Amino acid sequence: MRFFGYERKAQDGEARLGVLHTGRGDIRTPAFMPVGTAATVKAMLPQSVGETGADILLGNTYHLMLRPGAERIARLGGLHKFMSWDRPILTDSGGYQVMSLAKLRKMSEEGALFRSHIDGSEHMLSPERAMQIQTLLGSDIQMVLDECPAFPATEAEIEKSLMLSLRWAVRSKQAFSAEPGQGVFGIVQGGIYPHLRRRSAEGLREIGFDGYAIGGLAVGESQAQMFETLEAVMPHMPKDRPRYLMGVGKPDDIVGAVLRGVDMFDCVLPTRSGRNGQAFTWDGPLNLRNARHAEDTMPIDPDCRCPACRQFSRAYLHHVVKANEIIASMLLTWHNLTFYQDLVQALRDAIAGGEGARFEKSFRARYTAEKSVESVT
Amino acid sequence: MRFFGYERKAQDGEARLGVLHTGRGDIRTPAFMPVGTAATVKAMLPQSVGETGADILLGNTYHLMLRPGAERIARLGGLHKFMSWDRPILTDSGGYQVMSLAKLRKMSEEGALFRSHIDGSEHMLSPERAMQIQTLLGSDIQMVLDECPAFPATEAEIEKSLMLSLRWAVRSKQAFSAEPGQGVFGIVQGGIYPHLRRRSAEGLREIGFDGYAIGGLAVGESQAQMFETLEAVMPHMPKDRPRYLMGVGKPDDIVGAVLRGVDMFDCVLPTRSGRNGQAFTWDGPLNLRNARHAEDTMPIDPDCRCPACRQFSRAYLHHVVKANEIIASMLLTWHNLTFYQDLVQALRDAIAGGEGARFEKSFRARYTAEKSVESVT
Repeated sequence: MRFFGYERKAQDGEARLGVLHTGRGDIRTPAFMPVGTAATVKAMLPQSVGETGADILLGNTYHLMLRPGAERIARLGGLHKFMSWDRPILTDSGGYQVMSLAKLRKMSEEGALFRSHIDGSEHMLSPERAMQIQTLLGSDIQMVLDECPAFPATEAEIEKSLMLSLRWAVRSKQAFSAEPGQGVFGIVQGGIYPHLRRRSAEGLREIGFDGYAIGGLAVGESQAQMFETLEAVMPHMPKDRPRYLMGVGKPDDIVGAVLRGVDMFDCVLPTRSGRNGQAFTWDGPLNLRNARHAEDTMPIDPDCRCPACRQFSRAYLHHVVKANEIIASMLLTWHNLTFYQDLVQALRDAIAGGEGARFEKSFRARYTAEKSVESVT
Repeated sequence: MRFFGYERKAQDGEARLGVLHTGRGDIRTPAFMPVGTAATVKAMLPQSVGETGADILLGNTYHLMLRPGAERIARLGGLHKFMSWDRPILTDSGGYQVMSLAKLRKMSEEGALFRSHIDGSEHMLSPERAMQIQTLLGSDIQMVLDECPAFPATEAEIEKSLMLSLRWAVRSKQAFSAEPGQGVFGIVQGGIYPHLRRRSAEGLREIGFDGYAIGGLAVGESQAQMFETLEAVMPHMPKDRPRYLMGVGKPDDIVGAVLRGVDMFDCVLPTRSGRNGQAFTWDGPLNLRNARHAEDTMPIDPDCRCPACRQFSRAYLHHVVKANEIIASMLLTWHNLTFYQDLVQALRDAIAGGEGARFEKSFRARYTAEKSVESVT
């Protein structure tokens, strides 16, 4: 039997090197979690996701509750067995997608009443139901249901929303029925207002969670605003619990956030960009659709260990991107997930060596050198 | 240095077990060639195609000449290097796609003038250009340019067309500049008219080719008509050369054709059906979209060695098919190509043991048992 808990191995400024122990295995932190929305990391076999170095992936409660359904997944033996992934899975609570994807019918103290974007069927997502679904899925890290205000929002709107989220956090914690080795995370809200972030963090600490996420960022604010918010909230986050920055982000976002004390990340960027013909490199992103790659016999990155770089030229990738071939999504997703895992490994190495600040400086210099930057949507 | 040539290892009735030697390796016959139209077998990495047991794959001259272009592929080191596949490749001549995909401008003694279906650009495909393109690609087995009449066509139309194809076959053979280990195949036409098939076959034998394809079948005629045509043409095919039935077919088509003396096949059915949610099994095809699979914890085939069957349930495949996830195309394509390779391996084993007729009977009984058949488009 293994228990859930965070172990800090080293500290370098605010940056932390650690291990998050779960019943299904250890997660090396800082960690990047690939997004497996509908029980699949798009365009990847789960074994390949593991080969990139991912210790954990993320599943989306909203998508899974609608299709194929949480009760059905439970009858089929849980999400891990269903999607053939035996390492840890973190599930979100569904709140963010209810706001962004569903036709919202009514938000109340009870929860969110909405219609499915797939078939129009009506569903109620309450804090209790969100936890029940995550338990049915067999999630190793479960997230409380919170309300996610849009950006920009007024201070009053943010405050009202975070107070509702705190009441929901109490109910979520009460509804969480842990198996040994599973944990539940609270989510700090408060927009870009330091005193609201502090109130949210303190409220969640009083309830007591196994980890603390920072929500409501990467919703349209600048990177500078995001980093300022992280600096404001971090003093109020427990040092003995993992810290998870939800939905972030670009490689330079991740480096900056790790240097400010974040341990965990998830983002669709490497997978979605891969399906759009874009590849991340240490010299900045590449758009393989660009005609300048049409006869380039070099791989994306000669030092990369992924199949796209070991077996194929930029010219080939350009061709299959232009021809909308599935192999383009497969190879570029694999490459991008490998890059993100290599990035967090490099961050872990840097923190272990007390070289975090130096790493950030050299990373930024190379990543943003003007010659190599191509737009990534 | 290895030379091109067919070696017959065993004969069982009309069915033949053999090896086709090429400069890039041996092809065990009967052989099924996965279709890699645009320098990719759709939804598969080339290494995975090899793991299914394929000794050779097919590339499409028409698609590759238009995008990325034959001269470009030559500059990039040839098709094998471009697409990361070092075993043999057979290329068609482009004639069939000019008829079925392009906007045909003018058919003449010289060749076919057409507009690209991609960008409307005008191109001339003559016998000489078809061979030049295949040489630029580095194809191991090159096909003569022929005219492919639509089905149904009158006897007079078929006869006129096959006489043109014979004149083109002479020019194609003259234009073929073999590297050692490469070969060129003629294509027998003649529709479903035995005397025209015979004339075509005899004309091609006079020219002399390394192998003989049977074209103009699987274009709408019944399976009985196809088998009758094979029986009519086979006595006029050289015994010391491989025989390739183009564009065929369903598993039962392949079994019947092998029993009638065919050595090689290509077809988009396993790959295209995989992308449409359909799986081939020894008990007939399955449509994974069907709701009856939604909670079925069994794999497609518990005895199959492919990743779809080793790691996933029918319930999971049903889910990802319904959700239009890329992994559905990846897994079902892999399964179907594995099934087709296992089918030709079973045929090779049956012929080696003198059990071809018995194999066909037991295959048909199981494959077409009513309980298990679902429609495959």
